[in-house]
Amino acid sequence: MGEPEQWVYDFAEGSREMRDLLGGKGANVAEMTRILGAERVPAGFTVTTEACVAYMKAGGEEPDGMVEQVAEALERLEEATGKTLGDDDDPLLVSVRSGARESMPGMLDTVLNLGLNDVSVEGLAAKTENERFAWDSYRRFVQMFGNVVHGIEGARFEDAIKQVKADRGVETDVELDADALRELTATFKDLYEFPQDPQEQLRQAIRAVFGSWTGRRATEYRRINRIPDEWGTAVNVQQMVFGNMGDSSGSGVAFSRDEVTGAPEPSGDFLVNAQGEDVVSGVRNTRDIAELADVLPEAHAQLMEILRTLERHYGDMQDTEFTVQEGQLFMLQTRNAKRPAQAAVRFACDAVDEELLSVEQALRTIDPAALDQLLHPTFDPKAEFEVLTRGVNASPGAAKGEVVFTAEEAVAAAEEGRSVLLVRPYTEAEDVAGFHAARGILTSEGGKASHAALVARGMGRPAVVGASELHIDLSARRITVNGSTIEAGDVVAIDGTTGRVTLDDVPLSDPEVSEHFDRVLGWADGIRTLGIRTNADAPGDARKARELGAEGIGLCRTEHMFMAIDRQPKMRAMIMSDTTEERRDALAELLPLQQEDFEGIFEAMTGLPVTIRLLDPPLHEFLPSLPDLAADVERARIEESYDLERLERLMSRVQDISEENPMLGTRGCRLGILYPEIYEMQVRAIFRAAAAVGERTGGEAPHPEIMIPLVDYEQELEIMRALVVGIGDEEGLTVGEDYTVGTMIELPRACFVANRIAQHADFFSFGTNDLTQTALGFSRDDVESKFLARYLERKIVDRSPFETIDQPGVGWLVRLASWVGREAKPELKLGICGEHGGDPESIAFFHMAGLDYVSCSPFRVPIARVAAAQAVLAQK
Amino acid sequence: MGEPEQWVYDFAEGSREMRDLLGGKGANVAEMTRILGAERVPAGFTVTTEACVAYMKAGGEEPDGMVEQVAEALERLEEATGKTLGDDDDPLLVSVRSGARESMPGMLDTVLNLGLNDVSVEGLAAKTENERFAWDSYRRFVQMFGNVVHGIEGARFEDAIKQVKADRGVETDVELDADALRELTATFKDLYEFPQDPQEQLRQAIRAVFGSWTGRRATEYRRINRIPDEWGTAVNVQQMVFGNMGDSSGSGVAFSRDEVTGAPEPSGDFLVNAQGEDVVSGVRNTRDIAELADVLPEAHAQLMEILRTLERHYGDMQDTEFTVQEGQLFMLQTRNAKRPAQAAVRFACDAVDEELLSVEQALRTIDPAALDQLLHPTFDPKAEFEVLTRGVNASPGAAKGEVVFTAEEAVAAAEEGRSVLLVRPYTEAEDVAGFHAARGILTSEGGKASHAALVARGMGRPAVVGASELHIDLSARRITVNGSTIEAGDVVAIDGTTGRVTLDDVPLSDPEVSEHFDRVLGWADGIRTLGIRTNADAPGDARKARELGAEGIGLCRTEHMFMAIDRQPKMRAMIMSDTTEERRDALAELLPLQQEDFEGIFEAMTGLPVTIRLLDPPLHEFLPSLPDLAADVERARIEESYDLERLERLMSRVQDISEENPMLGTRGCRLGILYPEIYEMQVRAIFRAAAAVGERTGGEAPHPEIMIPLVDYEQELEIMRALVVGIGDEEGLTVGEDYTVGTMIELPRACFVANRIAQHADFFSFGTNDLTQTALGFSRDDVESKFLARYLERKIVDRSPFETIDQPGVGWLVRLASWVGREAKPELKLGICGEHGGDPESIAFFHMAGLDYVSCSPFRVPIARVAAAQAVLAQK
Repeated sequence: MGEPEQWVYDFAEGSREMRDLLGGKGANVAEMTRILGAERVPAGFTVTTEACVAYMKAGGEEPDGMVEQVAEALERLEEATGKTLGDDDDPLLVSVRSGARESMPGMLDTVLNLGLNDVSVEGLAAKTENERFAWDSYRRFVQMFGNVVHGIEGARFEDAIKQVKADRGVETDVELDADALRELTATFKDLYEFPQDPQEQLRQAIRAVFGSWTGRRATEYRRINRIPDEWGTAVNVQQMVFGNMGDSSGSGVAFSRDEVTGAPEPSGDFLVNAQGEDVVSGVRNTRDIAELADVLPEAHAQLMEILRTLERHYGDMQDTEFTVQEGQLFMLQTRNAKRPAQAAVRFACDAVDEELLSVEQALRTIDPAALDQLLHPTFDPKAEFEVLTRGVNASPGAAKGEVVFTAEEAVAAAEEGRSVLLVRPYTEAEDVAGFHAARGILTSEGGKASHAALVARGMGRPAVVGASELHIDLSARRITVNGSTIEAGDVVAIDGTTGRVTLDDVPLSDPEVSEHFDRVLGWADGIRTLGIRTNADAPGDARKARELGAEGIGLCRTEHMFMAIDRQPKMRAMIMSDTTEERRDALAELLPLQQEDFEGIFEAMTGLPVTIRLLDPPLHEFLPSLPDLAADVERARIEESYDLERLERLMSRVQDISEENPMLGTRGCRLGILYPEIYEMQVRAIFRAAAAVGERTGGEAPHPEIMIPLVDYEQELEIMRALVVGIGDEEGLTVGEDYTVGTMIELPRACFVANRIAQHADFFSFGTNDLTQTALGFSRDDVESKFLARYLERKIVDRSPFETIDQPGVGWLVRLASWVGREAKPELKLGICGEHGGDPESIAFFHMAGLDYVSCSPFRVPIARVAAAQAVLAQK
Repeated sequence: MGEPEQWVYDFAEGSREMRDLLGGKGANVAEMTRILGAERVPAGFTVTTEACVAYMKAGGEEPDGMVEQVAEALERLEEATGKTLGDDDDPLLVSVRSGARESMPGMLDTVLNLGLNDVSVEGLAAKTENERFAWDSYRRFVQMFGNVVHGIEGARFEDAIKQVKADRGVETDVELDADALRELTATFKDLYEFPQDPQEQLRQAIRAVFGSWTGRRATEYRRINRIPDEWGTAVNVQQMVFGNMGDSSGSGVAFSRDEVTGAPEPSGDFLVNAQGEDVVSGVRNTRDIAELADVLPEAHAQLMEILRTLERHYGDMQDTEFTVQEGQLFMLQTRNAKRPAQAAVRFACDAVDEELLSVEQALRTIDPAALDQLLHPTFDPKAEFEVLTRGVNASPGAAKGEVVFTAEEAVAAAEEGRSVLLVRPYTEAEDVAGFHAARGILTSEGGKASHAALVARGMGRPAVVGASELHIDLSARRITVNGSTIEAGDVVAIDGTTGRVTLDDVPLSDPEVSEHFDRVLGWADGIRTLGIRTNADAPGDARKARELGAEGIGLCRTEHMFMAIDRQPKMRAMIMSDTTEERRDALAELLPLQQEDFEGIFEAMTGLPVTIRLLDPPLHEFLPSLPDLAADVERARIEESYDLERLERLMSRVQDISEENPMLGTRGCRLGILYPEIYEMQVRAIFRAAAAVGERTGGEAPHPEIMIPLVDYEQELEIMRALVVGIGDEEGLTVGEDYTVGTMIELPRACFVANRIAQHADFFSFGTNDLTQTALGFSRDDVESKFLARYLERKIVDRSPFETIDQPGVGWLVRLASWVGREAKPELKLGICGEHGGDPESIAFFHMAGLDYVSCSPFRVPIARVAAAQAVLAQK
């Protein structure tokens, strides 16, 4: 058996490095004790997270030695404070608080004033010469203990309080005198078996805190915040200090800097003669921390000094809790402050200027995922409004506009200069024009990886999706939601950062152009080694991305170009062609339009690389839907319409082209193998556009990177490369000099044979969306709406694999292909252009995997720049 | 530079081990020279395949040293024969023949009688005292040389021959005398520049044979027969012998045993006074080899002796060519004889009995893929009939019956005792009942991996699919094909082994039960280490498989059970349920039916393991199609039918359930996670069925192996295992004792985390169909019909990856998962139940990968038994 583990640490033994073992609160209190001195931090000890884990594993039994170690720690605490738990005359009172590795505010239980009983309450009264204080403390303890440890419903205590107030004819709690509180305490004690023995109180309280870890509320919180169940919580037992001992006492929270703007003045709130809960609960109106200088100048001065000390010590903005007991300042908690993006970049810059942090340290304090808050309008933070419903926060920023139900309406309205919001149950490729025209997107179906979400993020359009309370009747052009009705033309506002939807006319704040932001991005660029490109299909998006720092285009999809309303008929004619000749004729009409598209893109990206992917989606995406056609045919048949034959022919062709599983069907380079004339047209358009732009700008012609999608076999790429080079020869261009040819790596097989594929490729770009779909067998179009929610709930996944890369499966494939690809061709350029290119955690992975660049939607470029720099720093 | 390679080998230098270098013919001629002695085999030499490869690589230039080595070899040949090429008096004549590593009959070019010119022809005439023979030989040479080497159209020579015959007033070639032949030869020589120099003739001929390797015909042949382009062909230069030198001469082909039955008597054909081409071309009626004893008794006796010698030497049935020149027997060629399955098993058994071969050697001579020919009726081999059209030979065996167009008709007709053939454009799940009822299946769409092909093979029903010349009009109940019309009820016969379709009343031969076959299978069982199970969903299939040697069920799919017509309404009610309670009620009705199914299966497999997969396909497979519904709704709307509301509700529900890519959607264990009540019902039905069968048979209850499909994450299996064990507990059964729980491994991600998944699995079964779909991004339903043909044509793949496992991708995943799975749990049982389980090449792979068993459709069980034994032998 050997010596039992150390389950209990005095605050004086711990430090912030011991966070995993002592929890966040325990480690920070220990650290504060170390740096501020024992007199500033009430003494105490921590029961470790490992003890909690052992306790859970044993089915709710304290591990060997823990009970004894708690008793010993308590003895040391009594010695240090000169007081004894449960003493008749001068009892030691303690708080028992949870403290997990990551903060889980309000999720775990806390017991205050522990140590009081029928005897020691009298001692406290005598010692403090404050009978009411003593009985109020006891009353609070019995109530809290009953609720937390014995699971007595809070309402039963509240009812008793109401009854006493009624009996005494008073209105508020503070009017209850010692006598009333004594009576109330007795009533509370009748509700459950209250242990008079303080040692028993302590044991039960510690067990209760351990137990709260597996409570429903905490479990749900962990699921949402991706905190592992296996961590467990520590328990902190600490001497009580009292902010409610009169006008020289008080409690408050203080930030070392302004928590909203990041400005260098401390901010916070306090209350005189109050305990911490009173400040947080919002029952009383708190006072600004600056006023503390007037009320308790000495404590204020000490607090300011301590905030500076802590900030310097932790190297980050601090969020603290303090109590002043009869003029003496005690620090109860400190932690790195959560902050909005605006404050984060401000702090980072100031901290460098103040020589508080080095540039690298400052950069680490920034959460890159939050940065795109800075690029979009927001609801005015001061505005009040009623939330109509909520959906998934799919694309950040706020938008307001008249409701329209179709892309056509959106385009028409935008041309008239009206602001509109596109509202659809879900969106499809043909709605894309409407995204450009609308201020924002609102759907009733779909999740963060739905079409609407992806396209909106790609364009930087705010979007709320999957607002499932909306009942959208497209034919009636009407939405019903929670009893309200919204007609086309009504104004609705959405906040894509939070998912809120409102009918109120909330004022929007424009994004501030911030020098701090630019400075932070500049640092990131100096540190990162990953290149950052953008996914852009239109010149406007390309320009925006370039403004935001994109170093080229990593993915220019050519299919959206065909979705444009004026091109659909030509595209359909091409697809419906019966012969190669007919198809060539239709393609000849599309060629100048494609060339125009590419010219726009090249111009927006002069001097930077542009990777263009040839046509990828299955052709039937460009055709009408089969059920719609079936209904049309049936109607034409019944009505004996002269249109019947045409419709039947159309339907039969759509049937021919339709596939059971289009994602796994005739798309990508399979189209290029079947219909080489399509790819030939696209390649010719690219080459001619490059030449035209070169001529127009008088500079060197752009060097396009032509990318072949969905390659499985090296032969596919060999054939496609030959096709491209053939057109290159006809246009007088040389591969490797004037342009390059590469491939998407987006199928598991391709990863296994990446060494062979590399023989025919100048570059690889990982298509992690498709790779996720195939490696996991997850259809992105279906999974999010059908079963992802249940998977999150059952904790099978902790995040959509379409948001953050699935490392064991997809990540492994990426690493494998990078490795064998580079082994075969050391100079091979490697990038990634899936949605994951804008996700910080995934970017860190791609950096580790040795890729050359990531490519993401324009508004994610700043995020990627910072995340890429942090990935470098993480390796140091 | 160094010494040039050896490009040329005399026959005396070679042996059969040098097949890769010398080609099949060169190696065999060398081998024959070695064992029969130089006097039995005309002397000569071989220019190697490597020379051909070097020649092709150099763009049609002989490699360094080759020309010189040919000249030297020719000198040696002249010395050995005592004759000189182009000699005025007694010229050496040679044949120049191709000889690839694998036989490519008729695909590569040959030149005979090389060495003749205007002078030596006279010498030959004088020497043989046969002017006509000499001029006929010269005429043939000039013609063949012109055609093969100079690319002159054959018709131009034929025209000239016709002209001469007309001029001379004769009917046949043999009537042309020496004079006429001399004139004809002169005419031929006017058609191109004929080289008089025999050395130049030889050089050009060798170049022409090399060149024929890359001809269109040969390239196409290699594609079909999966022969790599890189092999190249050797060239054999051999002294000519003449079977056409009078009545003591002749030519023939001889098999060492009957080539159809395998009976131990040699078979073959010959002609007196004729060359080899005459025997093969079928111009003259050949005589049975037995008659050679009467005509040329000495040669016959020698031949019989030589056949025995060769067979014993090669250890296999031989297929030979011979020539008798003026009484002397020369052997020109020998090779292992191709033979039907019937002859293959007969030979194997006889060879063992004759102590010609060991059991292991005998087993190696069998092509397992051909074995299921022995299990099905065939067209009577003697029958003559007209082929109406051809399709893909999707499932072997012949069938004949009245044409029906729906499953319902098939079932009804079968109940009346009529034989029917189910004819459909393609088939779907709901047609399966019709497969059972019909004698055979004929479709106009799809390939070897289409639904029709898979189900037909699974049931052992003959099937021809993708017969694209058939125009099937389901509403008119009529087929038009090449001008013929077939109405419902007309009798059609199909041969699923060859893909032929006919309207003639071809007699069918029933499969012979063969003791030889049983004996071969017995040997295989003694050698193989792989277990062989079957995929069977119905008791009849299970019994059949058991008869054929299956050692259990590796995959019992539970979805086909729900497809039965009487169950569809209950299944639909279950799916359409709005609440869990409604669903449970509908499931309660299905439970006894499922239990009945499982009882039947367990009874058929008493004492053997049965792996049952819980529900796998997406639910909408059980619902009507959306386009059909859309048409119904439209009609109801126009006609203001009272049914409209019901139809709209149905359509809306089907829309809810439908998915863009059902293969990647809500199926497999995802269903079990979303609707645990479905899996609970199935598991309960399995357990109760096992108990009932145990009770009924009085023996031990069956130990079902419950298999969870489509697992990606270990948590999925953990949850599903808990569900199964929960039901087990309720039914009083213990996991590991009374039943086991395992999973399909059919997604790439699962392979990467197989060690984690193994923690919750008693066994893995590789679902290589789904693994192929996901690893390659190929939808099986779409790929075969849409682009596989083009991929074969462009040589991107050489076979459907759904037939033979894709080793670099899918195979790698199987190996990886086996390895990490067993590392985590050494006792893990590993099997495979995809279509590949019945493919010999794939079975060899699975053996090497260390799997415990393969599972295949019942009629493939014998194939798998032999292939598994051969896999063991291949490793020795």
